[in-house]
Amino acid sequence: VLRLFRRRRRSRAAAPTITPRSEAVAAVRVELAELTPAAEPFLGQAGYLTLVLFENLGRAVAAAPTTAAKTALSRAAAQVLEAHEGLVAELVGLGVDPAAAMDPFRERLDEYQRRTEGADWAEILVTCYLTTGVLSDFFTGLAGGLAPGLADRVALLLDVDRGERVLEGELRALIEQNPRTASRLAMWGRRLIGDTMLVARSALAAGPGAADASTDRIEPAFNELIGAHSRRMDALGLTA
Amino acid sequence: VLRLFRRRRRSRAAAPTITPRSEAVAAVRVELAELTPAAEPFLGQAGYLTLVLFENLGRAVAAAPTTAAKTALSRAAAQVLEAHEGLVAELVGLGVDPAAAMDPFRERLDEYQRRTEGADWAEILVTCYLTTGVLSDFFTGLAGGLAPGLADRVALLLDVDRGERVLEGELRALIEQNPRTASRLAMWGRRLIGDTMLVARSALAAGPGAADASTDRIEPAFNELIGAHSRRMDALGLTA
Repeated sequence: VLRLFRRRRRSRAAAPTITPRSEAVAAVRVELAELTPAAEPFLGQAGYLTLVLFENLGRAVAAAPTTAAKTALSRAAAQVLEAHEGLVAELVGLGVDPAAAMDPFRERLDEYQRRTEGADWAEILVTCYLTTGVLSDFFTGLAGGLAPGLADRVALLLDVDRGERVLEGELRALIEQNPRTASRLAMWGRRLIGDTMLVARSALAAGPGAADASTDRIEPAFNELIGAHSRRMDALGLTA
Repeated sequence: VLRLFRRRRRSRAAAPTITPRSEAVAAVRVELAELTPAAEPFLGQAGYLTLVLFENLGRAVAAAPTTAAKTALSRAAAQVLEAHEGLVAELVGLGVDPAAAMDPFRERLDEYQRRTEGADWAEILVTCYLTTGVLSDFFTGLAGGLAPGLADRVALLLDVDRGERVLEGELRALIEQNPRTASRLAMWGRRLIGDTMLVARSALAAGPGAADASTDRIEPAFNELIGAHSRRMDALGLTA
């Protein structure tokens, strides 16, 4: 599987005219539409996930070595909280208790957070950038399988820059300042991607077609997600 | 001094028609107007302070034992970040680099944060509630000494609920659930208030009248701040 990922990534890298986000989002949307969970579990896990992304950003703000980085990252945190509040509002709109809808996903996502915590602010920064990027791509694509009105609103909540530009700027500055961190951070990124793809995999509905889908549809869509991630990392000088 | 604080607090508690915030804010505004720093240092330290309050809330979200508490506290964090972004925008409007304006206050406020961190989520919650409450009162009042237009805008940024209702609700639930924590939290609150008043004291401009002001004006204004704090704590069943 890893070999396939590598091959796909390289062939895709030859088509830089399409932005990573739209390409990966489109692949998930087309391939995995039938595996989109119902509205409540979709919103519940996306809602809890934005809390996890926010907590990571909170640690990044606390660990940031400069005031400029702190205030820039706080903007990223505010953007992720905006997405969280939007998802919570959708749950309320469905007449569902938001906490009850998020609860079933708590243990797994807390465990994901623990595994991807990062030892210092450089690693925390990579965690924030990588997890926000890949999981925004994935959940934005997956939202396409929701009912039309909800699908559009959720895509609007997720498929905009939720702090990624800020994170990219901070990460770029960090690597320029200390090029030797690049290989360490690249290694950290490779460790993160496996856990992140497992979170994406476990978010899919296990419907009647799930078994077939796991070979035919999931792999191409996940290759696109990893390809988009790799291109983002490459652009920062980090070999994914 | 502590005895004076106690006496004032009790006499004020007899006038519950005035909300703590407006009373304390008014006292600071009237007594300390001449000690308001210039726009840049005012916004710089209020800006950095909102980052500190945000980092505390980030830790509260991470430490919260339930999903409901997490999502409620994330709303408080979003509100504090809104204030932070507004203060940063005012610095940009003055043609000042926000990070440069905040930097001089970083070391002192980071030290304040370290001292007031809290050992578990109950203590973090008290830290968030107490520091947000007292320092919002103080900086809102102190903003009255800024130039008229700026004074109004800053008061509007600070003198609205910046997550305090959410924090109060969480704290109330926690105490009801486990009444024995009340005395421990009350003790923690008493430890916090001294450090918090030092932050307020050091925010005052050291102008020519500062020496006189320190006896005549600072003490009454600070008594009001502590009184407002005590009434909030009393209302939760925590003896301040």
